[in-house]
Amino acid sequence: MESLQFIIELLGTFAFAISGIRSASSKNFDWFGGYVVGLATAIGGGTIRDVMLGQAPFWMTNSVYMVCTAFALLTFVMLKRQFTRLSKTWFLFDTLGLALFTIAGLQKTLIAGYPFWVAIIMGCMTGAAGGVLRDVLVNEVPLIFRKEIYAIACILGGLVYWVCTLVGVPVALTVIITFWAVVVVRILAVKYSISLPVLKDPDLWKK
Amino acid sequence: MESLQFIIELLGTFAFAISGIRSASSKNFDWFGGYVVGLATAIGGGTIRDVMLGQAPFWMTNSVYMVCTAFALLTFVMLKRQFTRLSKTWFLFDTLGLALFTIAGLQKTLIAGYPFWVAIIMGCMTGAAGGVLRDVLVNEVPLIFRKEIYAIACILGGLVYWVCTLVGVPVALTVIITFWAVVVVRILAVKYSISLPVLKDPDLWKK
Amino acid sequence: MESLQFIIELLGTFAFAISGIRSASSKNFDWFGGYVVGLATAIGGGTIRDVMLGQAPFWMTNSVYMVCTAFALLTFVMLKRQFTRLSKTWFLFDTLGLALFTIAGLQKTLIAGYPFWVAIIMGCMTGAAGGVLRDVLVNEVPLIFRKEIYAIACILGGLVYWVCTLVGVPVALTVIITFWAVVVVRILAVKYSISLPVLKDPDLWKK
Repeated sequence: MESLQFIIELLGTFAFAISGIRSASSKNFDWFGGYVVGLATAIGGGTIRDVMLGQAPFWMTNSVYMVCTAFALLTFVMLKRQFTRLSKTWFLFDTLGLALFTIAGLQKTLIAGYPFWVAIIMGCMTGAAGGVLRDVLVNEVPLIFRKEIYAIACILGGLVYWVCTLVGVPVALTVIITFWAVVVVRILAVKYSISLPVLKDPDLWKK
Repeated sequence: MESLQFIIELLGTFAFAISGIRSASSKNFDWFGGYVVGLATAIGGGTIRDVMLGQAPFWMTNSVYMVCTAFALLTFVMLKRQFTRLSKTWFLFDTLGLALFTIAGLQKTLIAGYPFWVAIIMGCMTGAAGGVLRDVLVNEVPLIFRKEIYAIACILGGLVYWVCTLVGVPVALTVIITFWAVVVVRILAVKYSISLPVLKDPDLWKK
Repeated sequence: MESLQFIIELLGTFAFAISGIRSASSKNFDWFGGYVVGLATAIGGGTIRDVMLGQAPFWMTNSVYMVCTAFALLTFVMLKRQFTRLSKTWFLFDTLGLALFTIAGLQKTLIAGYPFWVAIIMGCMTGAAGGVLRDVLVNEVPLIFRKEIYAIACILGGLVYWVCTLVGVPVALTVIITFWAVVVVRILAVKYSISLPVLKDPDLWKK
């Protein structure tokens, strides 16, 4: 179970880093820029969470996240033309990572003694804030604010975790249920193009 | 007094959240995007302050800020066409909030044992950094860096607080004087279009 | 030695602030905007480092950085037309500052008990993150992600520091060697237009 979580976490880190490196490549960043944006995407959410919880950022105690991002950069540079064809693979890794990051954020916040509503916010932030940081660094409007269900899947996962805890489901089972809830919500949302309503600018109504 | 402060704080949070949600709507963000930008505008400045002071972000101990932002989002979605007509109301709320956030930042920093010049910076940050965060998240140039007197009102308020403390004015009266100083400076600056000089690009002089 | 370091640190702060104020002027920010962007450029990297290390930001205990940035703003406003002609001076100050900021970041992280790979990241962040913050605040794509060797000079400096420590070079000498390593790498990279390879967008290959 432990080592399975670790493998999924690495896959998620890898997929998040790839998504950052791809954004960087669309702006013709150099290798260093790609590495930094990839890293920010992969570890940004968890870092903001840890700083808010008053703890040392998680990546400062284990260099595996740095190595994993370097590996993602190498993979990107080497695979080149074959890259776009693998987009379903990246989507799958990304979704698994999203689910696990959310759970990690939930658990770390609960262990720090905060109530569930804070944990749900932190779970969402762990999963989704890296993507916001990525878009800020490449000077684009954050994608997750106007496209599909992404962060909402994290929040729903947090609610599922909460309900499971309330009704006394064992932790190991709660983790598994939450994991699948996030994954299924995200996949269904993409498959059926489910999205939230869009805000309309009130000034536009006047015209 | 206590409950009056709390009501003003909620009005300020509401107005800051509305300003974030309006920016989000101008970029066609969805409801989630509007909520996050509204929240970042409302609690961003105080969160940066708390992290720098080494304390837990204030909103993590009281869910009222989350609820208040949700209420702002609902209000925005429901009022729709009538919204622009209320702009004077939002301006008033926003100015009251700015004044109170500045004072909260000042006091929290002084209590933490820092000198007055740090407190003035933190007061300004509490009032104005949320707006910078809002503009970064919607990918616009921060408004307060090139329009009217806004953050300067916070700094003047901080100086007023400092002078009041130096000459021995009781705290309750100092708070009231500072509050009105910020409000009056901001309203006068907008009414008479007072602004700071603009920096000119030296490279443009050559042409 | 101590006072020499302090003078270089002030020159570096000044040069970093000037670089932020110039960016602000290219967007017609007002004086306040210029001051904030200058300050963010000068102290941003060290602030992020300190927050991650769980320490109070360094500028909160010494007002010299605020004063130095104010002096940079005054210099900029007064020198006006003569400004662009001094660009070699700013480049020199900036490079000296980069080297010293890198060393400060390295040493502070090692003292906090972290391993060398964390220290190298923090050294790089101290030197280069301020420039990223500057570009985010003026809504531009970060320059250091796609131009010349800049952050890489910090990383090389960190590696030099590490090797010196491994082979038992005394600290004072290690600092001097690292300092010149960063300065020389940066100057050579600019002189001979050395840069990293650029990432290419895989979607463009298909066309």
